[in-house]
Amino acid sequence: MTRPLRLALSGASGRMGRALLDLLGEDAGVELVHAVVSPGSVHDGEPVPGAAAGSLRYAHDWTQAPPIDVVVDFSSPAALGPVLDHCLAQGTALVSGTTGLDAVLEARLDDAARRIAILRAANFSLGVAVLTRLLREAAAALPGWDLEIVEAHHGRKQDAPSGTALALGRAAAATRGTTLEAAAVYSREGRTGRRNEGSIGFAVVRGGDIVGEHTAMLIGQGERLELAHRATDRMIFARGALHAAHWLAGRAAGSWQLEDVIATPR
Amino acid sequence: MTRPLRLALSGASGRMGRALLDLLGEDAGVELVHAVVSPGSVHDGEPVPGAAAGSLRYAHDWTQAPPIDVVVDFSSPAALGPVLDHCLAQGTALVSGTTGLDAVLEARLDDAARRIAILRAANFSLGVAVLTRLLREAAAALPGWDLEIVEAHHGRKQDAPSGTALALGRAAAATRGTTLEAAAVYSREGRTGRRNEGSIGFAVVRGGDIVGEHTAMLIGQGERLELAHRATDRMIFARGALHAAHWLAGRAAGSWQLEDVIATPR
Amino acid sequence: MTRPLRLALSGASGRMGRALLDLLGEDAGVELVHAVVSPGSVHDGEPVPGAAAGSLRYAHDWTQAPPIDVVVDFSSPAALGPVLDHCLAQGTALVSGTTGLDAVLEARLDDAARRIAILRAANFSLGVAVLTRLLREAAAALPGWDLEIVEAHHGRKQDAPSGTALALGRAAAATRGTTLEAAAVYSREGRTGRRNEGSIGFAVVRGGDIVGEHTAMLIGQGERLELAHRATDRMIFARGALHAAHWLAGRAAGSWQLEDVIATPR
Amino acid sequence: MTRPLRLALSGASGRMGRALLDLLGEDAGVELVHAVVSPGSVHDGEPVPGAAAGSLRYAHDWTQAPPIDVVVDFSSPAALGPVLDHCLAQGTALVSGTTGLDAVLEARLDDAARRIAILRAANFSLGVAVLTRLLREAAAALPGWDLEIVEAHHGRKQDAPSGTALALGRAAAATRGTTLEAAAVYSREGRTGRRNEGSIGFAVVRGGDIVGEHTAMLIGQGERLELAHRATDRMIFARGALHAAHWLAGRAAGSWQLEDVIATPR
Repeated sequence: MTRPLRLALSGASGRMGRALLDLLGEDAGVELVHAVVSPGSVHDGEPVPGAAAGSLRYAHDWTQAPPIDVVVDFSSPAALGPVLDHCLAQGTALVSGTTGLDAVLEARLDDAARRIAILRAANFSLGVAVLTRLLREAAAALPGWDLEIVEAHHGRKQDAPSGTALALGRAAAATRGTTLEAAAVYSREGRTGRRNEGSIGFAVVRGGDIVGEHTAMLIGQGERLELAHRATDRMIFARGALHAAHWLAGRAAGSWQLEDVIATPR
Repeated sequence: MTRPLRLALSGASGRMGRALLDLLGEDAGVELVHAVVSPGSVHDGEPVPGAAAGSLRYAHDWTQAPPIDVVVDFSSPAALGPVLDHCLAQGTALVSGTTGLDAVLEARLDDAARRIAILRAANFSLGVAVLTRLLREAAAALPGWDLEIVEAHHGRKQDAPSGTALALGRAAAATRGTTLEAAAVYSREGRTGRRNEGSIGFAVVRGGDIVGEHTAMLIGQGERLELAHRATDRMIFARGALHAAHWLAGRAAGSWQLEDVIATPR
Repeated sequence: MTRPLRLALSGASGRMGRALLDLLGEDAGVELVHAVVSPGSVHDGEPVPGAAAGSLRYAHDWTQAPPIDVVVDFSSPAALGPVLDHCLAQGTALVSGTTGLDAVLEARLDDAARRIAILRAANFSLGVAVLTRLLREAAAALPGWDLEIVEAHHGRKQDAPSGTALALGRAAAATRGTTLEAAAVYSREGRTGRRNEGSIGFAVVRGGDIVGEHTAMLIGQGERLELAHRATDRMIFARGALHAAHWLAGRAAGSWQLEDVIATPR
Repeated sequence: MTRPLRLALSGASGRMGRALLDLLGEDAGVELVHAVVSPGSVHDGEPVPGAAAGSLRYAHDWTQAPPIDVVVDFSSPAALGPVLDHCLAQGTALVSGTTGLDAVLEARLDDAARRIAILRAANFSLGVAVLTRLLREAAAALPGWDLEIVEAHHGRKQDAPSGTALALGRAAAATRGTTLEAAAVYSREGRTGRRNEGSIGFAVVRGGDIVGEHTAMLIGQGERLELAHRATDRMIFARGALHAAHWLAGRAAGSWQLEDVIATPR
């Protein structure tokens, strides 16, 4: 590449935004050109910290934005609307990890993907994206093997199984022509009787400060496969988003996923 | 030892009895001197197969029994009564894996243990006995670490968690001054909220022909211990029973457990 | 299928041949029509045991062979020649696990694959075939992640790392544009210095009666993937060969591999 | 406890010293009363950061030290001498993780342990201390099982196997009446022949940023035990040292180890 990627951050003072700032300082291939915080944020107008930021100051909107190759957004549903307006107006690629959108905003994003490149994910770990693809293939190649998904997270986690475990199960169920609603078994206690053929079992471990581990087991007669992902540092989610930004900039309009990124190494 | 151990089998034509016959053929330190099947069994009077059996024939009672050092019993509650009578009359040590006893028979066994050496277990794997002891120690040494037990078995298993997983949890709970009734969490699904301090979580995997795997996890901040037992061959239960028989023969009266065997290598 | 698969066994009284006989009895979709042992074998002319064999007797050649859909061969280099002659003469598909062939026989097999369907493998586990494919994909999708292969086998194994571990490493190396010769690190002891980028490390565990376990680890920053296969029963190799036989019968001429079988479920 | 533990840090501006400062801020049971850096350090005289430090400033010696219950030292062989002088003069307990001492200083420490309580360790993880004890017990209880130790660390590690893996092996070897020198197998490559009975095998994995994982496997016939410790955060070493400091303060003179700490929970 002859010049660095011009990247803008949306949600720049949030947890993921700060993690991205840390990462950008280590990536000579990126120039941070704009960093947006919520209107009214105490950071608005302050210097953006980090080696990649130069003399940049936080902005609260996109009016003064210079030319941008890709926006990385970890903000809020309210802030995502203006981000999308700006990307559409300028033809800029958009990577977003913002969740909890309503149907209207979801529809706007789908619509926008006909004109600009958009990549969204709930989990930006590249390893989980690869695991998802491997699981699809294994579930197809070994149709008669029993499928079980075990996940482990820290003790403060509020829900079970994890969203990522459910997404893995959903991917495998689709591959096998069923759904999680039909196949999932979330609990086994007491007189369960024998395992139902074709079911997908979930097992949950909680404790300590485990960042997140997911193991998909395909269990046959006399042999089995265990496909596991272990996360030990939350920074991987920022790293995955930055990787996706590099991949997405300059790509054709469309609704992209992290699995596309790993399928087509740049 | 100057002469082989004189061993008698009770329940000699059952699954465990046959597995023991296979093992005895490989153990020059044992002489099989009596093998009892149920009265009315088709095997009664037939030659006992296996290298260790010599010209021995199956018997249906203990009247013709020669001198015995130890009886190994995997029969039924009905057959165990006469076994116990014989052991008491002759002062013979008794290893038994028969389960499902009623309170009367349990009381008789407790009483008998004042006069003869008796060792009973539901799971004769030496590895599980060691794991149980290690778990007790780890649970005591790391009192603030979260405890979780994961087990995996074949898809035909009817109950969950396994009896061995529950026994492990019970041992750890006792070490920590609580009970499984107070501490166990058998299912996590949906909005669980955060993990309760001091709880013991169970997670269950079912599939294929897994013989049995148990992992006790002690999870702290930034580190954890995983203590796992993997069984790949049901023969280990016969082997553990035979090992226990060697250990028990000639030992003082008392109610012994497999954990005693591993604590005092012969 | 309107009629059972007509299958012939070559090397029918060997370890794998006997395992296949056991399996055939459980598979109503197969009719065993011919079973060949070495000329001079004590079994020659004896009845073939097993439910699938009917009144069949062992033969020592192919002269009396009835019509066959597929030959499964686990014999010897010397016996494989006549098998190949027969398959070529009749246009019969051939599954072979015989190893240790000389260059002449290898060349004959390559040549024969232009006229008949031939599938050869050193390890007939379907799970390992799937693992190999998954590893190729992961190694391509995560090019910067460190790759390590850990294998565990019983203590009687004579060589290290296992042939399967090496095959996994070779597949990953090819995907990354290198070779095992250039990338493999087989030993780490003492002052090793830091890990070389792009290397593929092997680690070997030996003990007990472990049938065979292989774990490919792709290790990034803050996350990693572990792709593991665990075999607990040698019968899987017979099962994989039988599965391959079903798949291969009626297929076009060519040199097929187990990875093709799992890529195209029948 | 009626008053907080009065703790002094030696090597207070080093990596472990700073980690301890972070921890002390979260521990209301400790008052940091003295913090020593090397003479000539740029930090000498500066305010000590962290909530636990109050208005404390870094010192370069022990002349102005107030009364201290326990010194925690992660400094250098040169700095440890004056620390020891002060502890001996005041009868103060000493926790030290400084390594690379010469024989003279080792002898001085041994001598000092007759008059004050000293606890030294190369690895202050409590989990590893527990693992070491569990391994000793398992190695004794299952004398015929094959022992293998697998460790995994980041790619920048310079030596193999890790010091902790060697320490685990040494503990197990001693339990079994042998030594690492006699029993260890550090490499398996090519035609190894069968495993030697009684040997202790080591297997090494290197990659990414793995903090440190150690698995001791005891492998029998048809079953095995796997005792694993996984570290995901280097902070555990500071935490273990602080835990040891609480345990050691007020204890009798002697040369203590981390295994004593976990054997006698305070």
